[in-house]
Amino acid sequence: MLIETLLVPLLLFTLVAKTAPNVLAAKLLKASGLSPVVLEARDRVGGRTFTARNKETKWVDLGGAYIGPTQNRIFRLAREYGIKTYKVNEQEKQVHYVKGKSYPFKGSFPPMWNPIVLLDFNNLWRTMDEMGTEIPREAPWRAPHAEEWDKMTMQELIDKVCWTRNDEFEALLFVNVNVTSEPHEVSALWFLWYVKQCGGTMRIFSTTNGGQERKFQGGSSQISECMARELGDRVKLQSPVYRIDQTGDTVVVETLDKQTYTAKYVIVAVPPSLNLKMHFNPELPSLRNQLIHRVPMGSVIKCMVYYRENFWRKKGFCGSMVIEEEGSPIDLTLDDTKPDGTVPCIMGFILARKCRKLSELTREERRICEIYSRVLGSDEALHPVHYEEKNWCEEEYSGGCYTAYFPPGILTQYGKVLREPVGRLYFAGTETATEWSGYMEGAVEAGERAAREVMCAMGKIPRTQIWQTEPQCVDVPAFPFVTTFWERNLPSVGGLLKLMGVSTFLSAAAAVGLVACKKGLLPRS
Amino acid sequence: MLIETLLVPLLLFTLVAKTAPNVLAAKLLKASGLSPVVLEARDRVGGRTFTARNKETKWVDLGGAYIGPTQNRIFRLAREYGIKTYKVNEQEKQVHYVKGKSYPFKGSFPPMWNPIVLLDFNNLWRTMDEMGTEIPREAPWRAPHAEEWDKMTMQELIDKVCWTRNDEFEALLFVNVNVTSEPHEVSALWFLWYVKQCGGTMRIFSTTNGGQERKFQGGSSQISECMARELGDRVKLQSPVYRIDQTGDTVVVETLDKQTYTAKYVIVAVPPSLNLKMHFNPELPSLRNQLIHRVPMGSVIKCMVYYRENFWRKKGFCGSMVIEEEGSPIDLTLDDTKPDGTVPCIMGFILARKCRKLSELTREERRICEIYSRVLGSDEALHPVHYEEKNWCEEEYSGGCYTAYFPPGILTQYGKVLREPVGRLYFAGTETATEWSGYMEGAVEAGERAAREVMCAMGKIPRTQIWQTEPQCVDVPAFPFVTTFWERNLPSVGGLLKLMGVSTFLSAAAAVGLVACKKGLLPRS
Repeated sequence: MLIETLLVPLLLFTLVAKTAPNVLAAKLLKASGLSPVVLEARDRVGGRTFTARNKETKWVDLGGAYIGPTQNRIFRLAREYGIKTYKVNEQEKQVHYVKGKSYPFKGSFPPMWNPIVLLDFNNLWRTMDEMGTEIPREAPWRAPHAEEWDKMTMQELIDKVCWTRNDEFEALLFVNVNVTSEPHEVSALWFLWYVKQCGGTMRIFSTTNGGQERKFQGGSSQISECMARELGDRVKLQSPVYRIDQTGDTVVVETLDKQTYTAKYVIVAVPPSLNLKMHFNPELPSLRNQLIHRVPMGSVIKCMVYYRENFWRKKGFCGSMVIEEEGSPIDLTLDDTKPDGTVPCIMGFILARKCRKLSELTREERRICEIYSRVLGSDEALHPVHYEEKNWCEEEYSGGCYTAYFPPGILTQYGKVLREPVGRLYFAGTETATEWSGYMEGAVEAGERAAREVMCAMGKIPRTQIWQTEPQCVDVPAFPFVTTFWERNLPSVGGLLKLMGVSTFLSAAAAVGLVACKKGLLPRS
Repeated sequence: MLIETLLVPLLLFTLVAKTAPNVLAAKLLKASGLSPVVLEARDRVGGRTFTARNKETKWVDLGGAYIGPTQNRIFRLAREYGIKTYKVNEQEKQVHYVKGKSYPFKGSFPPMWNPIVLLDFNNLWRTMDEMGTEIPREAPWRAPHAEEWDKMTMQELIDKVCWTRNDEFEALLFVNVNVTSEPHEVSALWFLWYVKQCGGTMRIFSTTNGGQERKFQGGSSQISECMARELGDRVKLQSPVYRIDQTGDTVVVETLDKQTYTAKYVIVAVPPSLNLKMHFNPELPSLRNQLIHRVPMGSVIKCMVYYRENFWRKKGFCGSMVIEEEGSPIDLTLDDTKPDGTVPCIMGFILARKCRKLSELTREERRICEIYSRVLGSDEALHPVHYEEKNWCEEEYSGGCYTAYFPPGILTQYGKVLREPVGRLYFAGTETATEWSGYMEGAVEAGERAAREVMCAMGKIPRTQIWQTEPQCVDVPAFPFVTTFWERNLPSVGGLLKLMGVSTFLSAAAAVGLVACKKGLLPRS
C-alpha cells in the first residue's frame, strides 16, 4: 500500500564527458570507471524521499519511508551503507473505524463479520490478484485483455465486482491508499498491473510481511545522501535542467544556474511528466511528446502528529488505523514512534480527493487530532506536542506523490515508450520500473537498469546484462501469503446467488419428484 | 466539430515594464497605452493555427482553420484586418461510408433508415444537449450532477444511452472528431460541457450554420500575423520562456535565447500543461501545480491530398466524407479546394487512437488515397498530385491538437483554478475560454479577457468590464437549429420498449377484460 517513491530524488542527471546517472546510476557508472555528473534540481538529494531532522522529531521521513520483503535491491543498498531497518510497530491491535465505531483487529485487512460481505470482500481481492496474473509486469499493454481493461476505470471494475456497499468502500480505500488517486481517475489495467508488480493485494497492503513492514533507522534519505557523499562534487545541487540539446555528437544540457554540461549520454531520472520541464532539441518523438502530458502524479499530504506519551499502545492499539469516514481527513495511519519507544508519533495520510479539498485549509481546520481521538477513544489524542507535514502536491519538482498514475486508455496507447531511449537519452525514475514501481525499490531497479543501458551503449556490457534479478535479502525474508481452501473456493456473492438459484431449482425438482412419487404418479418398474 | 485552437499561438508573453499579453492581449493592451511585449516560442506567430504557403497549394491551413456562426469575436478581428471568409463547399452531397458502402446524404448528420437506429440516434443527440443545459459554461464544476458525470467517462455515458451498435459508432466518431480523443479517455462532464459551450451538438458538428461553415481566404494565421505586424518589434520570436520569477516587485522572465524581461504583469497564453515548460519561483499553488499535469492535448494529424481535378464534385459529391471503418486512417473529410475552384484538395483528419497507431508509419503505408477511392468510388482518388500534412502530436510547444481534454475526475477537482491568477500571472489560451473553448474564437475570448484582467489590476477598468459579450457578426448570422416535433418527442429505444411493455400490458388487460366480459364473468350493474 502506501509508500513511495524515487530513491534517487534527482531532478535529472547528466554526465560530463561520459555518461549520465542520478546518484544511483552515477554510483554504478563511476564504479565502472566512467565520470558521471548528477544534476539535482533541489537543494538536497533524495527526491520523493525526504528525511527532515530537528530536535522535536530527531528525524522524520516526510516522503517515501516504508520498505518490506521482496524489495531486495533497496535492502542491498542500505546494507552497503550500514543503514539498519526496524519493524513498524504492529504488536498491539489495529483499529478499523467504520460508521462511527472502532473495531480492533489483527492481520492485513480488517475482518468482515457479515457472511455476504465476507464473500464479497474475499472475491474482490481474489479477482484483482487473478486478473493480475494475466498482466506481464514488464509490458502490461500486452496482457490478453489489455485493451478492454484499459478502457475501464478502476471504478467501473469495482462496480462490476462488488455487490455490497462495504466492499465498495474497502475497494475505494484500497485505491486511495495505494496510488493516492481516485478509482474513477485510474485505468483498471494500470491499477491491476501496479498491484501485481508489487506482489499482489496482500503484499502491497500488509505491514507485517508486506510493503510497510519496515523503515530505515535514521530515515530513508540517508541512502541517497551516502551515495551523494561518495560522488562528492559530481553531484550539483540546485541545478534544474531546462534544456537538452542532442543535435550534435554529444548532449548539451543547460541548468537554471546558467551552467552548461556536455555529456555522451544522459539519464533522465524524473517522473515522466517532469520531462516537460525541459526544452528538447530536437523535439521528442510524437508518442513520448504526448505520453509526458498524460501521466499525472498522485495527491497526498503526509501528516505526523507527535505526543508526549504513546497512549495508544497502553490502550492495546498499535497505532494502525483504517478509517472509513468521508468526513475524516485521514484514511490510514501507522505508528511512527522511534524503535526505542521515544518520540511517540502517529503518521497519517490525507489522500486523493481529500488532499485536494484540504490543501487550502489550515492544519487546525483539518481537525486531524479530533478523528484520532474518536477512533482511539482517547482525549489524549487531542493534545499533540508537535506536528510535521508535507504536502507533495505543491512540490514543483515532484508534481505530487507517491507516483504517476495512468488515466484510462493511456497505458495501452503510450506505455511502450515509457523507458524507450531517445537518441542518447535514457529514462530512469521509479515509474519506469517493473517491480515495486512507485516505491524506492523501483527507483533502484530503474536507476541501475538505465546505467547498464548506457554501459551497453558504450560497449562495456552485453545487452543480456541490462536487466538483472536480485537475490533475496537474507535479513528480510519474504514469506508466501498462504490462502485457505475457503479463500480460494468460496463463491462470490454473484456466484452464491447463482448457486442458490440452481439449488432452489434442484430442491424444487426433488420436492416435486418426491410428491409425485408419494402420490404414485410415477410409473414404477 | 473539428477545429482548433489558439488564435494567438504564442508560447507565452510578457510585458517589459508594464503588462503582458500574447499578440492579441498585447494588441488590446497597447491600444490602452501600455507597452506589452510578446514572447513567442516558435519562429512564427499563430500557435495552433499554421498557414503554410508554397506554389503547389498557394496557401494551406495545417492547423486551426474553420470558423462559423456565433464565433463573433474572431469574425470581428478578421474584419478589422480585411480578411475575408468563404464557405466550405457543401453544395453537392456528403457521403456516409459504413460497412463498406457509401451512402450520399445532405444535412448535418448522416440519416438513419432503420427506425430503431433512428430513435436511438435522435435520443443520443437530444440527451447530450439536454444534459448540456444543466452545465454552466463558465463553471461546469457547479452543474447539479457535476460529480456524478465527472466520475464517468464519455464511454460509460455512451454505453448507458445507446442501444444499438450503429449509435455507439456514431457517438465514438462524434467524440473522436470533436475532441481528438477517445470516449473512454474523457470525462462525460467535460465533453458535455465542451459541446454545450460550442452551442450544442448541431452547432459543433455542422458545416453549414455550424463550426465548419467557413474558412479564411488566405489562411487563418493571417490574423496573428496582422496583429504581430502592428506590434512590430514588441513580438520576440524564438523566445521560449523557461523561467518565471515573481519573488520581487516585478516579474522576471527568462527565455531560451538568454534574454531577461522584467514586467509588471505576465499573461501566460499556452495550453495548461505547457505551463510545465516554465520553472516558477515561488512554486505554483498546489492545485495549479497538479492541474497542469492532468490536462493532456488531443491527438490529430491533418492531411491534405491535392488532385489535378475536382473529380468528386463531378460525381455529385461535395467532398465531405464521414467514414466509419476501423481500418480507415481517416474518419472525416471536407473539401479544401480554393473558393475559385483552383487547387482541388481534400482535407482529412487522422484522429485519437488512429493517430497514435499511424504516427509511426510513412505516408504511403497509411493508404489515405485508397480509402478516398473506395468511398468516392473513383480511381482518380488514387492519383494525387501533392500532399501536405501536419502531425500536431510531435510539436513540443503544442503537445497535441486541437485542445486539452479533461480525463475523468479532473474538472470537478481542479477546474476552478484553470484561469485563476497567481500573483501577477494571468492565464489565457483557448482552454480558459467559456464560449468555443478549443477554437480560435475561444483564444480571442481568453486573450481579451486576460488583457482586461491586467487592466483591471492596474486600475484602468472596473472589474465589471473584464468579461464582455460580443454582438453578432452581421455578415455571418447564426440561424437557430429548429428541432421537429418528432425529434423532441420520439421515445428513446428504452422508452419505446417500456411503452411497448405498458401497451402490451394494457392490450392484454383489455383482452382479458373483453373475454371476461364476453364470458359473463364480470358483475353487471
